[in-house]
Amino acid sequence: MQFHLNGFRTGDPSIAENVPGADDRPSAVDVLIVGCGPAGLTLAAQLSMFADITVRIAERKPGPLEVGQADGIACRSMEMFQAFGFAEKVMKEGYSVNEVTFWRPSRSGHGISRADRIRDVEDDLSEMPHIILSQARVHDFYLEVMRKGPRHLVPEYNRELISVARSDETDYPVIAKLRCLDQGDEEEVIRARYLVGCDGARSRVRAEMGHVLKGQTARQLWGVMDILPRTDFPDIRLKCAIQSEEAGSILIIPREGGYMVRLYIELDALAEGERAADRGVTPELLISKAQQIMQPFRIEAAETAWWSAYEIGQRLCDAFDDVSESERGKRGPRIFIAGDACHTHSPKAGQGMNVSMADGFNLGWKLAAVLRGQARPALLDTYSQERRATARELIDFDRDMARLFSAKPKDTAEAEMFQKYFQKHGRYTAGVETCYAPSLITAAPHHQDLARGYAVGQRFHSAPVVRLADAKPMQLAHAFTADGRWRIVLFAPEGDDGTGGGPVATVCSVLSDPDGLLIRHTPPERDIDSVIDVRAVFPQHHRDMKFTSLPALLRPEKGRLRLTDYEKVYCAQHRGQDIFDLRGIDRNRGALVLVRPDHHVAGVFPLNALADLEAFLGRLLTPV
Amino acid sequence: MQFHLNGFRTGDPSIAENVPGADDRPSAVDVLIVGCGPAGLTLAAQLSMFADITVRIAERKPGPLEVGQADGIACRSMEMFQAFGFAEKVMKEGYSVNEVTFWRPSRSGHGISRADRIRDVEDDLSEMPHIILSQARVHDFYLEVMRKGPRHLVPEYNRELISVARSDETDYPVIAKLRCLDQGDEEEVIRARYLVGCDGARSRVRAEMGHVLKGQTARQLWGVMDILPRTDFPDIRLKCAIQSEEAGSILIIPREGGYMVRLYIELDALAEGERAADRGVTPELLISKAQQIMQPFRIEAAETAWWSAYEIGQRLCDAFDDVSESERGKRGPRIFIAGDACHTHSPKAGQGMNVSMADGFNLGWKLAAVLRGQARPALLDTYSQERRATARELIDFDRDMARLFSAKPKDTAEAEMFQKYFQKHGRYTAGVETCYAPSLITAAPHHQDLARGYAVGQRFHSAPVVRLADAKPMQLAHAFTADGRWRIVLFAPEGDDGTGGGPVATVCSVLSDPDGLLIRHTPPERDIDSVIDVRAVFPQHHRDMKFTSLPALLRPEKGRLRLTDYEKVYCAQHRGQDIFDLRGIDRNRGALVLVRPDHHVAGVFPLNALADLEAFLGRLLTPV
Ligand SMILES: Cc1cc2nc3c(=O)[nH]c(=O)nc-3n(C[C@H](O)[C@H](O)[C@H](O)COP(=O)(O)OP(=O)(O)OC[C@H]3O[C@@H](n4cnc5c(N)ncnc54)[C@H](O)[C@@H]3O)c2cc1C
Ligand SMILES: Cc1cc2nc3c(=O)[nH]c(=O)nc-3n(C[C@H](O)[C@H](O)[C@H](O)COP(=O)(O)OP(=O)(O)OC[C@H]3O[C@@H](n4cnc5c(N)ncnc54)[C@H](O)[C@@H]3O)c2cc1C
Repeated sequence: MQFHLNGFRTGDPSIAENVPGADDRPSAVDVLIVGCGPAGLTLAAQLSMFADITVRIAERKPGPLEVGQADGIACRSMEMFQAFGFAEKVMKEGYSVNEVTFWRPSRSGHGISRADRIRDVEDDLSEMPHIILSQARVHDFYLEVMRKGPRHLVPEYNRELISVARSDETDYPVIAKLRCLDQGDEEEVIRARYLVGCDGARSRVRAEMGHVLKGQTARQLWGVMDILPRTDFPDIRLKCAIQSEEAGSILIIPREGGYMVRLYIELDALAEGERAADRGVTPELLISKAQQIMQPFRIEAAETAWWSAYEIGQRLCDAFDDVSESERGKRGPRIFIAGDACHTHSPKAGQGMNVSMADGFNLGWKLAAVLRGQARPALLDTYSQERRATARELIDFDRDMARLFSAKPKDTAEAEMFQKYFQKHGRYTAGVETCYAPSLITAAPHHQDLARGYAVGQRFHSAPVVRLADAKPMQLAHAFTADGRWRIVLFAPEGDDGTGGGPVATVCSVLSDPDGLLIRHTPPERDIDSVIDVRAVFPQHHRDMKFTSLPALLRPEKGRLRLTDYEKVYCAQHRGQDIFDLRGIDRNRGALVLVRPDHHVAGVFPLNALADLEAFLGRLLTPV
Repeated sequence: MQFHLNGFRTGDPSIAENVPGADDRPSAVDVLIVGCGPAGLTLAAQLSMFADITVRIAERKPGPLEVGQADGIACRSMEMFQAFGFAEKVMKEGYSVNEVTFWRPSRSGHGISRADRIRDVEDDLSEMPHIILSQARVHDFYLEVMRKGPRHLVPEYNRELISVARSDETDYPVIAKLRCLDQGDEEEVIRARYLVGCDGARSRVRAEMGHVLKGQTARQLWGVMDILPRTDFPDIRLKCAIQSEEAGSILIIPREGGYMVRLYIELDALAEGERAADRGVTPELLISKAQQIMQPFRIEAAETAWWSAYEIGQRLCDAFDDVSESERGKRGPRIFIAGDACHTHSPKAGQGMNVSMADGFNLGWKLAAVLRGQARPALLDTYSQERRATARELIDFDRDMARLFSAKPKDTAEAEMFQKYFQKHGRYTAGVETCYAPSLITAAPHHQDLARGYAVGQRFHSAPVVRLADAKPMQLAHAFTADGRWRIVLFAPEGDDGTGGGPVATVCSVLSDPDGLLIRHTPPERDIDSVIDVRAVFPQHHRDMKFTSLPALLRPEKGRLRLTDYEKVYCAQHRGQDIFDLRGIDRNRGALVLVRPDHHVAGVFPLNALADLEAFLGRLLTPV
């Protein structure tokens, strides 16, 4: 955490200084967010970082979520929480998934027995763990980030969106009508530059745009319950996939706090036209089903904290914004949907909350960049492109997974196949496989060989480094907070110690040239790293480097007091964890890795081909 | 974190359920704490854990500390913060000290040059880092713990203690008179079972008891300032000890947030009878002094956040309670002092805050145990014994250190000697060397050879383990929260997998026998682990153990719902970090390590000598 840049302040440094009017609720805003689920809150948290963006967030419910819904937090989501500054809270309070066991009909023919046990997350998949924590608590952490921001962003509850219209003649082209449920259903009109419907699977915003969720509804019914169990099942504190001979399947997810567990219990398939609600599912029924599946072990619920019945629907919307294919490029999107509003998933792969948050993270910085005049509005078209493709892939994967999970394994071979699939897709469910296709913001991977571990389009994979100025061992990506900035990471070639004339110093001088990339795109009154943040990693041991010999760009003077920022330069760790090896950096040539504000690798460039980089960013960023 | 034991609850699990009357401020309380510095707040935070103890805390100042004072947080204090549940906040916000550099007059004769660079904390000294963070923020974290406790403990500001008396005839023998500074100096009388003066170096409580701080006042004057520097000194983000040829010495401590640093600057010695205040020290004087010392580097303060002038006084009080040597054992102490009220230190070794907090931690559980009827009042005599001996040692060390630091190094050899001393005492300043002598609560180290790494009297040194039930890699000592419980850690000998008849199972059955230690000392309505918490560590790989075959004591049923506690059993990690090797456990015989509520090792016993253990605890704990 960096603070005190513009002078010493007492108190909690995570609380921003308020801007004037922070508590106002203007009737015309930059962004109106509808819905306080994971998608809406991620987006809101992202936008709340910027003092110069006005946001309102409307939620139909009378207050924050308190119980239930999703609970699986993929490694990639934890990386994002790290950028928002609350990963450590989730880690502390949540359950960490370390191993998964698989139970199958025992060979003896009676009941189930443990067939296998694997690690949940493979080594170096992510620096963050896979965590289980109530969605309600994730919401709480987001709400805290928003509240502490410069504009005190808090949701307005009891506000239901009833209609949305767009009229491009004004600065605030989106007109939203809301019903104030706590004020005799009085109506309020809010105008916005952009509106984002994060209003869940039954999205009103989606309906207003005339979009529909398409796709099969698999007819498998599942029950889910959070219980405080009493059981003699030995793996109750491990994630378990249990398939019984005759009684169906169950997935056990241990929960935070050491006692609670979630059970996902397979129920009978639904008949044509039948709905989950028709089944009269009760917690008693669910627990007795669990008892049958888990024979010979006994399980009972000392208390049921929450339960629900689900049918698995894998569905997807054609576009995530209000621009039709034929209009694309001619008019810009003004209305978006995110999260369950545009795609739904079976809970089995634990994706619903994670992918919804990733939607919000993808869209947030884009809206901010356009609103703040840093990027051309065409940037906004990439949201629907990128996130729809991701949702498509996920739904395909999810459908396969659900089918495999529900299918009664005919034989050991089939059961083993499921398990292989489960393992193989660990990377997928961890959320780290998402790869965006080349576009305005993702370059073609022409120079991938310079940094094989930073696949263009995938998230920037963190690795350990030592910060030069204070010799602190740390994760490189933890310097990349959710602040909307682009990052250029310079990996120095062997022998370059950053002194004048070397490759890194040369790149820095070109970048900071009065006609160069940084000056061109950075408002003169802002710090030089406020739009594009340049950092460097050197292969040398940090004790062999000299901070004061580094180019000025890597130790910039910032803020009102012109203080030196000491946190731009890193060295490889030399305890068997060298980032150059871990991420396949070309040691002879080094590499320039361009990282988007949402951590995805926008491109890998040679240190001596800045023209390509400048052209690429020039198409996107506006000159000042 | 464990929660939901007595049923699912929504919201932040670190907020305790309130007891009735949580917000009352009765005029008769169990403990009255005077002073809200690190000592008072540690004590208050400890006592705030117990719903059945009433506490008030009075502070003369109008509100919480906002700036200045100490900033060094030793590894041992971080371990304690972990037990209080806020170490991760301190880690996130603070500066971590990784390396220390030493600068000396350069051989060329002009200015200073870097002479050496060492790691600040040696490997496996502690699982926690050495952190620098404003004392004000440490106070904030304590205040949060207190507020979230079952009794909403908050300090009462503007309350100055003016007198204390003791009259043993009543249940509340201590009579304290306070002046309400915000209410026209109105007076309030509070009666208490115990009063603790945490009221700093000019302690009123100490004066009321007739004690005085004794010891030399070294006549060296030091200036301290927190600045936002502009400098070309390359090590400004490292802890540095700088000794110049002629201009004196300076200690640089980088601070939280990445920009601020603290400077401790040597000023001229004080003349006989002269006081620090007489010198007319100003921040300008301090900075110009720093500039002289740091030649040829330049340094200036873009802003000065705080500054002060100090003379080093190493002083100590004869007793830390109101019992004289001749009365000891005949009447119990009722009035205590802690922190700077009983000892003062030079800031150089960074001990003032750390040792004051350790005082509070030492006293807190003792008061709680006696007040809650778990331990005999004689326990309270150990506070003054233990903490005075520790303070004595510290002052001796500190005096040597200050003398060495102030002495102009005559030659390289002398300068190097200082550095050696500095290094050697790393363990000391980290706070992990404190070793309590044998007493009512510390057994003689007859069986030290069974667990050489758990020196009796020293703090229980954490090590990595894997929790059996959920395969979680973790630090063993992080299970030891600040909850006032004793811990028995059973280290199983090789081959013992916890099944019936083995050494661990046998110990467990003896301990939980109806006539055994646990039943004898645990109120029947409370959980079996509520006074003494038994845990076990096995040398096997966790996948080779069977949870359900373990003795019932290691998977006890607890709480209103009789839920199983799954977090008592651990296995050694097998990635080169085996706790049995790291802590020198006898693999053939295993060991029983008894740990005090303040984490100090009370004794090491053979697994087959429970009689010794029972006798030892029997002298201290009351039967129910
Ligand atoms: C009842 C339920 C149970 C679930 N259980 C599981 C589970 O067991 N496991 C799992 O992995 N996932 C589960 N999920 C899915 C998971 O919670 C979602 O994938 C995730 O919450 C999607 O996030 P979101 O932000 O897109 O939408 P949501 O979390 O659905 O949030 C949408 C929000 O918009 C609000 N809203 C809707 N319409 C309007 C309107 N017109 N005006 C104003 N506000 C509106 C809603 O009140 C809601 O707060 C469950 C979801 C639900 C709804
Ligand atoms: C001004 C100052 C500067 C310091 N600077 C440094 C430094 O630079 N580096 C360093 O390592 N250490 C420094 N210290 C020392 C360090 O802060 C102390 O060692 C540490 O705070 C001791 O903790 P304590 O709880 O024992 O006492 P304190 O922190 O002194 O707390 C005592 C509290 O009791 C209150 N109090 C006193 N009398 C009464 C009364 N009669 N009634 C009610 N309340 C009362 C005081 O207002 C105060 O809040 C400094 C201390 C002070 C006071």
